[in-house]
Amino acid sequence: MIPYNPHRWTSHLFDVRGSMVQEILGRVAVCVLWSTVVTMAHYRFPEWFRGFEFPATGHTLLGVVVGLLLVFRTNSSYDRFWEGRKLWGSLINESRNLGRLNQSLLQSTPEIQQRLSLWTSAFSWATMYRLRNERSLGPIAQELPPDDVHAAISALHPPMFVAGQMTNLVNEAHRAGHIDSIQQGFFDHNMTLLVDYLGGCERIRNTPAPFAYTVHLRRVLMVYCFTLPLALVNDFGWQTIVATLIIAYTMFGIEEIGVEIEDPFGVDSNDLPLEDFCRTIQSNLAEFTSAQRSATEPVHGPLIQN
Amino acid sequence: MIPYNPHRWTSHLFDVRGSMVQEILGRVAVCVLWSTVVTMAHYRFPEWFRGFEFPATGHTLLGVVVGLLLVFRTNSSYDRFWEGRKLWGSLINESRNLGRLNQSLLQSTPEIQQRLSLWTSAFSWATMYRLRNERSLGPIAQELPPDDVHAAISALHPPMFVAGQMTNLVNEAHRAGHIDSIQQGFFDHNMTLLVDYLGGCERIRNTPAPFAYTVHLRRVLMVYCFTLPLALVNDFGWQTIVATLIIAYTMFGIEEIGVEIEDPFGVDSNDLPLEDFCRTIQSNLAEFTSAQRSATEPVHGPLIQN
Amino acid sequence: MIPYNPHRWTSHLFDVRGSMVQEILGRVAVCVLWSTVVTMAHYRFPEWFRGFEFPATGHTLLGVVVGLLLVFRTNSSYDRFWEGRKLWGSLINESRNLGRLNQSLLQSTPEIQQRLSLWTSAFSWATMYRLRNERSLGPIAQELPPDDVHAAISALHPPMFVAGQMTNLVNEAHRAGHIDSIQQGFFDHNMTLLVDYLGGCERIRNTPAPFAYTVHLRRVLMVYCFTLPLALVNDFGWQTIVATLIIAYTMFGIEEIGVEIEDPFGVDSNDLPLEDFCRTIQSNLAEFTSAQRSATEPVHGPLIQN
Amino acid sequence: MIPYNPHRWTSHLFDVRGSMVQEILGRVAVCVLWSTVVTMAHYRFPEWFRGFEFPATGHTLLGVVVGLLLVFRTNSSYDRFWEGRKLWGSLINESRNLGRLNQSLLQSTPEIQQRLSLWTSAFSWATMYRLRNERSLGPIAQELPPDDVHAAISALHPPMFVAGQMTNLVNEAHRAGHIDSIQQGFFDHNMTLLVDYLGGCERIRNTPAPFAYTVHLRRVLMVYCFTLPLALVNDFGWQTIVATLIIAYTMFGIEEIGVEIEDPFGVDSNDLPLEDFCRTIQSNLAEFTSAQRSATEPVHGPLIQN
Amino acid sequence: MIPYNPHRWTSHLFDVRGSMVQEILGRVAVCVLWSTVVTMAHYRFPEWFRGFEFPATGHTLLGVVVGLLLVFRTNSSYDRFWEGRKLWGSLINESRNLGRLNQSLLQSTPEIQQRLSLWTSAFSWATMYRLRNERSLGPIAQELPPDDVHAAISALHPPMFVAGQMTNLVNEAHRAGHIDSIQQGFFDHNMTLLVDYLGGCERIRNTPAPFAYTVHLRRVLMVYCFTLPLALVNDFGWQTIVATLIIAYTMFGIEEIGVEIEDPFGVDSNDLPLEDFCRTIQSNLAEFTSAQRSATEPVHGPLIQN
Repeated sequence: MIPYNPHRWTSHLFDVRGSMVQEILGRVAVCVLWSTVVTMAHYRFPEWFRGFEFPATGHTLLGVVVGLLLVFRTNSSYDRFWEGRKLWGSLINESRNLGRLNQSLLQSTPEIQQRLSLWTSAFSWATMYRLRNERSLGPIAQELPPDDVHAAISALHPPMFVAGQMTNLVNEAHRAGHIDSIQQGFFDHNMTLLVDYLGGCERIRNTPAPFAYTVHLRRVLMVYCFTLPLALVNDFGWQTIVATLIIAYTMFGIEEIGVEIEDPFGVDSNDLPLEDFCRTIQSNLAEFTSAQRSATEPVHGPLIQN
Repeated sequence: MIPYNPHRWTSHLFDVRGSMVQEILGRVAVCVLWSTVVTMAHYRFPEWFRGFEFPATGHTLLGVVVGLLLVFRTNSSYDRFWEGRKLWGSLINESRNLGRLNQSLLQSTPEIQQRLSLWTSAFSWATMYRLRNERSLGPIAQELPPDDVHAAISALHPPMFVAGQMTNLVNEAHRAGHIDSIQQGFFDHNMTLLVDYLGGCERIRNTPAPFAYTVHLRRVLMVYCFTLPLALVNDFGWQTIVATLIIAYTMFGIEEIGVEIEDPFGVDSNDLPLEDFCRTIQSNLAEFTSAQRSATEPVHGPLIQN
Repeated sequence: MIPYNPHRWTSHLFDVRGSMVQEILGRVAVCVLWSTVVTMAHYRFPEWFRGFEFPATGHTLLGVVVGLLLVFRTNSSYDRFWEGRKLWGSLINESRNLGRLNQSLLQSTPEIQQRLSLWTSAFSWATMYRLRNERSLGPIAQELPPDDVHAAISALHPPMFVAGQMTNLVNEAHRAGHIDSIQQGFFDHNMTLLVDYLGGCERIRNTPAPFAYTVHLRRVLMVYCFTLPLALVNDFGWQTIVATLIIAYTMFGIEEIGVEIEDPFGVDSNDLPLEDFCRTIQSNLAEFTSAQRSATEPVHGPLIQN
Repeated sequence: MIPYNPHRWTSHLFDVRGSMVQEILGRVAVCVLWSTVVTMAHYRFPEWFRGFEFPATGHTLLGVVVGLLLVFRTNSSYDRFWEGRKLWGSLINESRNLGRLNQSLLQSTPEIQQRLSLWTSAFSWATMYRLRNERSLGPIAQELPPDDVHAAISALHPPMFVAGQMTNLVNEAHRAGHIDSIQQGFFDHNMTLLVDYLGGCERIRNTPAPFAYTVHLRRVLMVYCFTLPLALVNDFGWQTIVATLIIAYTMFGIEEIGVEIEDPFGVDSNDLPLEDFCRTIQSNLAEFTSAQRSATEPVHGPLIQN
Repeated sequence: MIPYNPHRWTSHLFDVRGSMVQEILGRVAVCVLWSTVVTMAHYRFPEWFRGFEFPATGHTLLGVVVGLLLVFRTNSSYDRFWEGRKLWGSLINESRNLGRLNQSLLQSTPEIQQRLSLWTSAFSWATMYRLRNERSLGPIAQELPPDDVHAAISALHPPMFVAGQMTNLVNEAHRAGHIDSIQQGFFDHNMTLLVDYLGGCERIRNTPAPFAYTVHLRRVLMVYCFTLPLALVNDFGWQTIVATLIIAYTMFGIEEIGVEIEDPFGVDSNDLPLEDFCRTIQSNLAEFTSAQRSATEPVHGPLIQN
């Protein structure tokens, strides 16, 4: 994610990074080249070329449909982006709630409390790495027993292995009589949600927009942009090139943004800062465990951003 | 579902499979043929044919409405597609949660634990086959007692039979004292959700877009496309044929995609990979049961994709 | 609901039933008649009539707004239709969940089990008849004691009476010690949801689109369609009549579909098949009770569709 | 709320009440007057006035944006209207569920049962009056002890006072041993929801559309409508007045409907019938209490509409 | 938030504060200046300048896309605004529910009751200050022990520290036998929700619209507005300046509103009145505690607005 001040236009209006310029450069360039060819043909062989020229009526009729499709595309991609953000927000929330419960209800068994706190942190790291097709538990691995870390990252599904560990820890506390089954239910409710959010993220990553839809939109965009110079050249003359540039840049840009934000869990400029989220969870949980130990000992660090 | 790389246009821009070209070929061809007839009449019998020609104003006025209706159609079909995907994602999540609970809370009764794990897997297979109007439990049938499998697939509603079996198993564990009623509640909550998701999928499959809506849109599309050459021919001449082709291809294509993705549980190219989902559930559950047995024995297989 | 195959256009493109043709015939006919009068006046009294003719600019400006309003109308009506479908789907789901629990937890008291199953079926029938302003419990009435049926259908609010009966039965089982209060909670959660869905359906039926909105849209549509011939006649000549027919048919048709599907609980062609839903619930519940008795006795009937 | 038959146009097409005609009369009249002045100037001082006339291109470009903004406004106002309706529907549902539980679980303590039933009724009345900035408990006040009524309506927040009373009653029943804490939980879940719905209604009433948005839309509408005659007069002549009337009526009407339905809890023609909702709750609850006493004694009154 | 009467146009049509006029003044002024230069060039050097002029077709084609993008922007910003409002509304609701439970269930331990009430108030203040990057507990700090306040505001994450305190208090009451674990669950459910809402607010504040999207929209807007005079000047003459002013004002205004309301937790004119919300919570909770003491002692203050 690129941090920027939305109130100041000048700070980012000409940024290249993250603004999709590079990604669409090829397509737009081909379009502009083609419009140059068309314009030259228009002036060089006016008689012969007239037969290829269109009035703009067709593009007006098509323009409404193409515009609506593009915005629908942007809309559904943004919904996925925002749903992904919500899922990670909820991961943070439920990890905090687990920490809150852990701090309070498992005071009588500091050892289980400590391990549960670490595995809760590990869950978010395992989720992040799984969404990026890697096998790791991140920095938290150094605080866990090497055997367990090894078992976790060599499991078929690491985050589910971690969730299993957490469930076992809570169940252990229950069997040892530290909590009753109702209090076990408080923990279980939160762990169920963590598994749901993990699954939600996997869903977004593994299900792109329907193939038929993406392909159809792209074909229509191609046809629209490549017939555009033929429709404009009669009225616009040499300006055709500029007009085609602007319209192609606008439309290909919107399409590309749709592609860019539909899977927000990668490492591109416009993706979500998953590492930061994991670190927030880790420090929130760590504070709970330390707060437990010395509730009134002040910490003068900076505010953690969620 | 067709896997594709949305960042590379060239990899799929000319694919035939899954891109609805074959489905709409007939309609578009008839449209183009008709526009050829119109254009020929326009040049052959200019005097007589003039009486049939329209200005394009009518199509401009109609175009906004048709475009909006098409996008509304795409929108609501996509919502169904995405809701179907969410339901299956949730099926995976709750099956995992059942496995997680099963692994931890029923350790004292490995036999019930094993059977519950298998029936949980069977639930997703039963749901998939029911959505495709078949009677089967898929590969899991080989691991269950043949009598039970027979009873399940000859039941009026196989997935509900499976859900009934799961409920009975948990209740058995409760009566035998392995879990208390609060812990039974953890299981029951998940099974309730599984039944909800099953019902959600049946709802999507059995309720197409309202008849009146589909028919009206198609009639308006037909009239729009077939009157189009009459509106364009005066300005476009022979180009009328190309313009009609492009516009008819665009519009019929969007309509067809709406139909294609509104029931995402079939076996078409753009449908959801239900078999993969069922297999994910099966392997997640199997890992829990085996993890239970040898928690630290590493598995070096590939990452399972949700 | 009219069953149709959305993949085959020819099967329904010319259907009259369910396609709103009859409903809008009057309005469209008046419009066409008026456009004939306008066109005749245009040719008969060209001098005098010129003063009444408009350019089409006004309709272009208005057309965007009218189109957007129409689609917003369709959209919100479809949302109501789909919400109604979801509510009935959830009614089916929770009735199944009640059946599932009933089968498993009340095995020790077959009499209460049987009565609860019947009253659960009765709830959906009572809801359906209430939504249609009738007093009945449908076919399930024959299986219940006549006195109870009489009390139910003469209650101020029959479905709530049924819900009360169900609550009493579960409470009776609790007081008799067949279930503890936690298990009572499983049942109560489902009954709470049934009451919520009932209320949701009543809400949709009793709250049409806001009056001001419906009236304003209709007035604007009237003015739009009736001034249309005056705007077109100069350019379109006799074609004005055809153009007015097409545009009026399109617009009045969309408006009428909005009205048709905004209350989906009636008995019109485009309404939901509530009887089928009730029968699905009844047979699902019956199977649970019989499955209870002979779990392995196969039933070779057809698959029940949800 | 104005009851009307959406299937019959003629029954309401010319209604004045509830159709926003009076509210926008002023604005539209000023617009029409101004367009008359413009048209007269156009004919009287053609040379001098030409300098003030616009082509219509600007309005075409602006028209799309204005139309979209208007529909977005309508859309978000309708969402608020519908959310308000849902909240009250849920208030009815949860009041019924409380009545259902009350009837069944508190049979052993008729006195608490009766008082809880009355306070549940009182909650909806208190909510309604609070939403209208009044202090009252409505007709239910006559059935409650005067001291309690006085305390309730003089509280800082009457509905919360009522909710507190309900909580105390249930807690009293728990302490007296009529229900255990799990059953107390059934009641508490419903009361939590009632408080949530109350807060939801207050949110809708106290938060209008963002100021910047409302003002910007209105300014743009003003500029659009007042420059319209200058853009039309050259092509439309005297018809300018009619065209301005129609377009101004359409646009100001949509804007006004948005304002009208964004706070649906007042006493305007298009607001929700809150009194009816409260009365439905009261009679539903009363029937539960009486059903309790004489379950088979038939009541032959009319069906209560939710 | 600016309070205003949406039914009276004149009361705010010319307000400067809160209407984004100042924010967009710069951009609009530059646009108008540029259009003046263009117009002067058009009249001064007609021959030479003709080569730079466009027909308006390009802007018509682009206008649909730009309009849709702007409305999509407004839409998603408004969704964030409204979600933020909902989150704070829910914060109020759950604080009230905690107060309600606290009043009733912890009557036997007035000391814990009092402290829980104060910390519940403190939670909303801590949340507000965190959203504004400050460290404070607001006015409630005066009623809490200075040491605890110091610990809270020097914690890494003050609101989570407060939530931890609340959890500990409830757990203390449980261990002391004032409530059982089921009743502890009622409290815990509410505290879980409070943490969720806090996280939701942080999510909205820390995640602006995707960078690529904001930048692309702004670039397209810039190009659109700066090429506009070239497209209009031939038809509009000196009116070009007015037309550019109106269109630029409309479009930049919509974009700016989107930016303004996408983070509604600041102290701008269009932001939410968070202090008022916190004060509502505080007074609601205070009344519960005092109502507890003297349930019938009337309070004659004004109605608190939520």
